[in-house]
Amino acid sequence: MIFSQLGNRDFVLRLEAGDDILESLQRFAERKRLRAAAFEGIGSLNKAKLGHYDFKTKKYTFEVFEDDLEILSLDGNISTLDQRPLLHAHATLGKRDFTVIGGHLDQGSLANMVEIVVQKLPGRLVKAKDEKIGLNLLQLPRKL
Amino acid sequence: MIFSQLGNRDFVLRLEAGDDILESLQRFAERKRLRAAAFEGIGSLNKAKLGHYDFKTKKYTFEVFEDDLEILSLDGNISTLDQRPLLHAHATLGKRDFTVIGGHLDQGSLANMVEIVVQKLPGRLVKAKDEKIGLNLLQLPRKL
Amino acid sequence: MIFSQLGNRDFVLRLEAGDDILESLQRFAERKRLRAAAFEGIGSLNKAKLGHYDFKTKKYTFEVFEDDLEILSLDGNISTLDQRPLLHAHATLGKRDFTVIGGHLDQGSLANMVEIVVQKLPGRLVKAKDEKIGLNLLQLPRKL
Repeated sequence: MIFSQLGNRDFVLRLEAGDDILESLQRFAERKRLRAAAFEGIGSLNKAKLGHYDFKTKKYTFEVFEDDLEILSLDGNISTLDQRPLLHAHATLGKRDFTVIGGHLDQGSLANMVEIVVQKLPGRLVKAKDEKIGLNLLQLPRKL
Repeated sequence: MIFSQLGNRDFVLRLEAGDDILESLQRFAERKRLRAAAFEGIGSLNKAKLGHYDFKTKKYTFEVFEDDLEILSLDGNISTLDQRPLLHAHATLGKRDFTVIGGHLDQGSLANMVEIVVQKLPGRLVKAKDEKIGLNLLQLPRKL
Repeated sequence: MIFSQLGNRDFVLRLEAGDDILESLQRFAERKRLRAAAFEGIGSLNKAKLGHYDFKTKKYTFEVFEDDLEILSLDGNISTLDQRPLLHAHATLGKRDFTVIGGHLDQGSLANMVEIVVQKLPGRLVKAKDEKIGLNLLQLPRKL
């Protein structure tokens, strides 16, 4: 992975062939001590581990797809869990026949080439495990 | 819905089980008196009302989908219509078999859990009904 | 195409019926001398030229789709190649039956109506042709 910092809050990353997308973002977040950020990317990958979460059974189902897939959108955010950066990313992927698959993006998804803009947000976002829902959820101070 | 303000222009929202996605964003926009904003979200919903607009007939076709669907992208903007905040959102949704559906997101779409970053933009965006096209369109001062 | 500048770094564009999406963004980038930017859009188009890149053969396959398609996400960035602005955009598109197609968006894709937020980034992004991969790639100074 290579990257550049543009101004105070924007980073541009390029993942290279074989880079694990989630692990690269995790390593970047740790190196830059990101506590709150949003990111958005496009590009291509050759292995995708996608998840779908069932809110009744509280379990992810995963499936692995291996082919050159266009990354139509890679959207997500960086928060913290137990003081460490926590990544959450969803991906929409385009196949050779232009049909589309997608899901929660898990570790084990490998880049062909991905361009990502990471925008650092002021302050800090904190997640904590919610036992009722079974996921790490953003803890936010105000209610509406 | 719970939320946090980060700095001057960024808000992070978490929609909770059963929250109407559009209505929650509308309520938030009114409370914060947003006049121009862009937002982007990921998460999951269990009921989606999707629309497709036909530019010849000038009519939306709607369909409702009920299942746990991953929100792969929730992209949109906030402008104003007759001084009130106006939401416009499109959603890409991932099914259990990792195929994807999507469309214009309408009221009646209910969250399982959605994380949204709302970025306030300076100034004001104004929409007005365009009779020829049949939609509320952004009124922007410059032409290129 | 019409547009508005909001503050120092944000632009909002509306593409009108028949506008070539890539060419409009290219013209805008040249007029505003953009050297680094990210953009995100939603809307509708009636002709899409989509590409899928094969990293083994180093070739794009293209297909053209003609119908009213909802633009669920139009994500991309603006960099420079040989001092000129270079656009890179991917699109996710929703059909009448709410299934979805998508790919690398090429010139020849024509708007019904598209709302795009362009966020100028500080500094400059530079791309150069990478012979091994066959694509124009971001040249970024730091490695991780």
